Amino acid sequence: MSKQELPVVSANGAGAGTVARCCPTLLAAPLDEDQADELAPVFKALGDPVRLRLLSMIASRAGGEVCVCDLTPAFALSQPTISHHLKLLRQAGLIASERRGTWVYYRLLPAATDRLAAVLTRPATDPAPAS
Amino acid sequence: MSKQELPVVSANGAGAGTVARCCPTLLAAPLDEDQADELAPVFKALGDPVRLRLLSMIASRAGGEVCVCDLTPAFALSQPTISHHLKLLRQAGLIASERRGTWVYYRLLPAATDRLAAVLTRPATDPAPAS
Repeated sequence: MSKQELPVVSANGAGAGTVARCCPTLLAAPLDEDQADELAPVFKALGDPVRLRLLSMIASRAGGEVCVCDLTPAFALSQPTISHHLKLLRQAGLIASERRGTWVYYRLLPAATDRLAAVLTRPATDPAPAS
Repeated sequence: MSKQELPVVSANGAGAGTVARCCPTLLAAPLDEDQADELAPVFKALGDPVRLRLLSMIASRAGGEVCVCDLTPAFALSQPTISHHLKLLRQAGLIASERRGTWVYYRLLPAATDRLAAVLTRPATDPAPAS
């Protein structure tokens, strides 16, 4: 399978092309250890419902940026707990942050989600039966 | 959480169309708590390099099915450890297993990976800047 077969390559943004070149879908050929070691922490960062909701709130925000002050009220959790989850998303390369004045602002790094979508996308010639 | 709670199981076989209807992308609108609670364990199951490699070996196998006896030699891990990782992938609804004679055979449930790819795919009108 070639990168050209991945629909994310043509998605907007220069990041997606780089991502697709780097990582073929895990459904087409066995991942090697290095690829698995690199991908697993990103999936692990998504393996928590609070972090999934935070990522979704950030990613879906019109304008592409969210103040931490707008994220915290959506959860029955302390500010330090929310900040910890945001830190894990940032360390996984899924979001970026910028402090401006009192608050920290977060935005999605779409190349990261593009990459995960790509590795989970079936190759054009699917080796697995759809059953 | 039981595997029965995961809609990915019931969506099995119907393909990406069903997946897309079932689960809007997390990049388009904030996930609600139920959606996040349901998705997080599936991502968590992928958050380990051994499980990612196992899933990839199973998914990419021509014929769509792999004997556990063919998976274990690829890892410097005991059979019970490999079986434990396979159990977690099965509980997350990512693979199915069938015992035939001495061995257990595993196959991908592609509706599950289709669903994850769908929730990570940017909506047609992307609210996030491509940076």
